[in-house]
Amino acid sequence: MSNLLIRNVRPNGGAPTDILIRDGKIEAIGQNLQAEGVTVEDGLGHVAIPGLVEAHTHLDKSVWGMPWHENAKVATLRERIDFEREKRLEIGIDPHRQSMRQAIQLAANGASHIRSHVDIDTTHGLALMEGIIETRAALDGVIDIEIVAFPQSGLVTRRGTVELLDQALSNGAEVLGGIDPCGIDRDPKGHLDAVFGLAEKHGKPIDIHLHEAGELGAFSMEMMFERIRALGMHGKVAISHAFALGAPDYLRVAGLIEQIAELDVRIVTTGSPSSTVPSIMRLKDAGVKVAAGCDGIRDTWGPWGQPDMMDRARILGMKNGLRRDVDLEHALHVCSTGGADVMDIAGYGLDVGCNADFTLLVGETLAHAVVEVAPRPLVVKRGRVIARNGVAEVAIP
Amino acid sequence: MSNLLIRNVRPNGGAPTDILIRDGKIEAIGQNLQAEGVTVEDGLGHVAIPGLVEAHTHLDKSVWGMPWHENAKVATLRERIDFEREKRLEIGIDPHRQSMRQAIQLAANGASHIRSHVDIDTTHGLALMEGIIETRAALDGVIDIEIVAFPQSGLVTRRGTVELLDQALSNGAEVLGGIDPCGIDRDPKGHLDAVFGLAEKHGKPIDIHLHEAGELGAFSMEMMFERIRALGMHGKVAISHAFALGAPDYLRVAGLIEQIAELDVRIVTTGSPSSTVPSIMRLKDAGVKVAAGCDGIRDTWGPWGQPDMMDRARILGMKNGLRRDVDLEHALHVCSTGGADVMDIAGYGLDVGCNADFTLLVGETLAHAVVEVAPRPLVVKRGRVIARNGVAEVAIP
Repeated sequence: MSNLLIRNVRPNGGAPTDILIRDGKIEAIGQNLQAEGVTVEDGLGHVAIPGLVEAHTHLDKSVWGMPWHENAKVATLRERIDFEREKRLEIGIDPHRQSMRQAIQLAANGASHIRSHVDIDTTHGLALMEGIIETRAALDGVIDIEIVAFPQSGLVTRRGTVELLDQALSNGAEVLGGIDPCGIDRDPKGHLDAVFGLAEKHGKPIDIHLHEAGELGAFSMEMMFERIRALGMHGKVAISHAFALGAPDYLRVAGLIEQIAELDVRIVTTGSPSSTVPSIMRLKDAGVKVAAGCDGIRDTWGPWGQPDMMDRARILGMKNGLRRDVDLEHALHVCSTGGADVMDIAGYGLDVGCNADFTLLVGETLAHAVVEVAPRPLVVKRGRVIARNGVAEVAIP
Repeated sequence: MSNLLIRNVRPNGGAPTDILIRDGKIEAIGQNLQAEGVTVEDGLGHVAIPGLVEAHTHLDKSVWGMPWHENAKVATLRERIDFEREKRLEIGIDPHRQSMRQAIQLAANGASHIRSHVDIDTTHGLALMEGIIETRAALDGVIDIEIVAFPQSGLVTRRGTVELLDQALSNGAEVLGGIDPCGIDRDPKGHLDAVFGLAEKHGKPIDIHLHEAGELGAFSMEMMFERIRALGMHGKVAISHAFALGAPDYLRVAGLIEQIAELDVRIVTTGSPSSTVPSIMRLKDAGVKVAAGCDGIRDTWGPWGQPDMMDRARILGMKNGLRRDVDLEHALHVCSTGGADVMDIAGYGLDVGCNADFTLLVGETLAHAVVEVAPRPLVVKRGRVIARNGVAEVAIP
């Protein structure tokens, strides 16, 4: 089942070649490969890239595939958080069903890996995460899902949340989340001490939401840098959003990026069109590992987004003002290999010996494939064809 | 041919009804309409809105449908302008063929009207415009095209351009363009005196590209306001892009918007993700007429964009940070009725007596239709079905 020969594809837009897969891994890449008793697929000359990586989403939040959710609120951040927490089950956002829908569509659109933040709070305990764990098991061999235990409603200010996060890290979450230490918990020291303490206890990495802009976000980053240095957590911390890096003060941002590079802090960006976002080209020049994500897709927070990392590559490229082919290629890199770098995904790549996780793209070149809106002709996960022309070969609930 | 009965559509997302069209105009809207000898279409309960309006594009520039155009330049603005002017024919950007491709796809995606800037310069004279005029004639009854004579390469600094614009306004251009009076011509007084003088001579409106940001753009706007007052050109001037209105100084921008409202200056926005753009909600509150456009689609300037005003509504909505349904409806308004307001399109609307120019959209509500990525089920122009499910019923060259 996981043996496959794909003829006539163009890895990263290069010359046409064949890819032979055995036991879910790439065994050979070359012209006119021969193999007995192996299913053969025609790649029709399409571009091939390693699997897209959705490095920041919320599989437990989407109403995708449900009746339209009307948003009539002019709400504060806190009101949005409270509304979602208290109404999500009433609205019918079943975490297993909804995460299945979103994850399968991400896979059909060429993603091989997802990092999903999942809400952990005193209203739901670990129940939401259990729905995602069920999805992870159901989609074994279709798409890999990594779970971040995420204190959306706050951590210090809601007693019992630290204990729940502790349990989540023992029961299936690979990463510990956090959120706006100043903005949400109003206690940056308390929030960050709790997050770094738990991560150290479990020996697990951190991925913290940091929407705080300007000097406030810079302050929270510096608080994180101090703890990374003190605990030796180089390469173990990611900052999602990092809107403070989009601030206009070039030198202030340079000082932050210098420390991010030194501490191997990873940055995860959504390229949010309405926010100040980090420059992916500037972070590239500084040698920082950068991933991208679609964030929430059509949820109680907002209506935007597609479960499609090529759609995100376009949003990211437009927001970053990219025009040159080589820069468009970097936007695609951020949405694929950059995600693997940030998440430390083993066996990732379109090379002999790597896991056979890849997608075909429509386009003459990589840059063309970024801007061309078209379904993925073929998606392969561990050597198995899991989608054709944007349609999953897996049932969607 | 232009008689048609469409059953079961939901105008602006309201209750299901029928629309009867006679001689290209809406004769009746109501339930269970009866008509003899009229073609009947089933609207399948889809949302109906008046035709989308593409109010800012460049039909003469796109490489859409041509081989991929590689962009390897790190170029200044002037270098991009010069490259395009001198290489466009060599690259094969035939203005008639390329404008046909773009305009037909816009129509298939539900647009009923286009305002296109077309380059007028001393290298090409009126030749590029003649290609668009040929397209306009070929697409009579498919999509309406309004031409802006546009001095892309500069006006004061290239002798002979004023005379060519004069000819263009006598030979088919309905509107006079202009561009960055400081930034391109380095002579704001000379540029604006020439533009306003020509417009006054021909009694035609103005639509000026103003990319100038911050105080520079504010200065150029004020130079325009002075001339509008002096010449009594209230309601006759549009500013495209207007990036200066996205400046952070709230009160400075308020002063500009106040004059824009007073002089009935129209604003045309692209919602450019990488620029400071005008807030469509703030302009709505001030009673300013606002339209939207996709700008250049995949040209020598840059790779982005789709010939699709619903794609633009999404870009606009995300850039403006909209979340509520009522605000998404306004983004759609800007891409449809707002364009008709800015361009003073007669007979526009989804009401009895209006021209039968409308499109169906997929979605439960207007807001849902904005975020749902789906082909338009049916597009009607002057009572004729011109596209089904995103595919034009017109040959594309």
